[in-house]
Amino acid sequence: MPKVVDHEERRRELGHAVWRVIRRDGVDHASVRTVAEEAGWSAGALRHYFASQSELLAFAMRLVVERIEGRIAALDRPADPRQAVEQVLHQLLPLDDERRAENEVWLAFTARALIDPELRAQHAEVHDALHQACASAIETLAGAGRANAGTATALQAERLHALTDGLAVHTALRPDLMAPEHIKAVVRAHLDEI
Amino acid sequence: MPKVVDHEERRRELGHAVWRVIRRDGVDHASVRTVAEEAGWSAGALRHYFASQSELLAFAMRLVVERIEGRIAALDRPADPRQAVEQVLHQLLPLDDERRAENEVWLAFTARALIDPELRAQHAEVHDALHQACASAIETLAGAGRANAGTATALQAERLHALTDGLAVHTALRPDLMAPEHIKAVVRAHLDEI
Repeated sequence: MPKVVDHEERRRELGHAVWRVIRRDGVDHASVRTVAEEAGWSAGALRHYFASQSELLAFAMRLVVERIEGRIAALDRPADPRQAVEQVLHQLLPLDDERRAENEVWLAFTARALIDPELRAQHAEVHDALHQACASAIETLAGAGRANAGTATALQAERLHALTDGLAVHTALRPDLMAPEHIKAVVRAHLDEI
Repeated sequence: MPKVVDHEERRRELGHAVWRVIRRDGVDHASVRTVAEEAGWSAGALRHYFASQSELLAFAMRLVVERIEGRIAALDRPADPRQAVEQVLHQLLPLDDERRAENEVWLAFTARALIDPELRAQHAEVHDALHQACASAIETLAGAGRANAGTATALQAERLHALTDGLAVHTALRPDLMAPEHIKAVVRAHLDEI
């Protein structure tokens, strides 16, 4: 009788191996070979999931999005709209080792998408999802009278999205200057004034 | 009698060739070989200036900084501090084909610096120079009473710097969503509210 393969379970197992390699070696040293070794799989079995470094990066980026969505879904959602917005934004920002690793995957994926047409569509999806998260944050604040009604919400959403991506780039390259408390203070100052 | 080589002139000539290749082929297809061909130099002569793709990127990034500095030095400096600040910030933002090419060099350089220790120090210099430009803009506005005195200027400078870098990333990857007038409107909305 042929063995029934639980693809979702195998994908999860593989995701854990990819993540361990990224955390240990850095995203640019994660390769099909190192991930296969880490997972105890054959290279052939792994090729079912990704056949190249670009596809590995695309897989890792999907994991990052799932991790962020999982954290946001698990939030307590405080009644205060401003606190609720800060909690969501904190899930997108590199505030601890886990989120710093996610951030490096995002930056590597972004840079690769610039030159790899295969990654462009997935990058646009991620970009749009993050933009939508920022737009929802602005709508929440505006709905509660906590944002300047005189500025178009599209501009506010772009400002918040650009701010979070800029903070992400700065933290990846200058972690010495971007302690978690500093990042949170910048976000607070921004939300105080929009 | 040995020929006297004007190194500054040769460097300028080479800079023009590097820039033509980047504009035509994209920064990631610019190589020591293509630049040597473009300049009509031997590969050996070129190695005096850069021996690898990383060094080519470092050279291109120095050119970008020189170009930005040159444009800022050539500004008319309007008397109105807000206008003066906007003019300077526009030199840092991808508002036309030239500045979009500079922006792609910056993003490629940033992504490479994440994994190439040789580029880290130069990246930190560029980062700090851009941060300083944003801090000066905030000081100018605060000095003229055009910025919220209740927020620490260090936080304002980081916000403006993160905003400009975030806009740069968004424009590189989603040029369809980031028309020059939209970028300028986002910067205006930000300066209106800080």
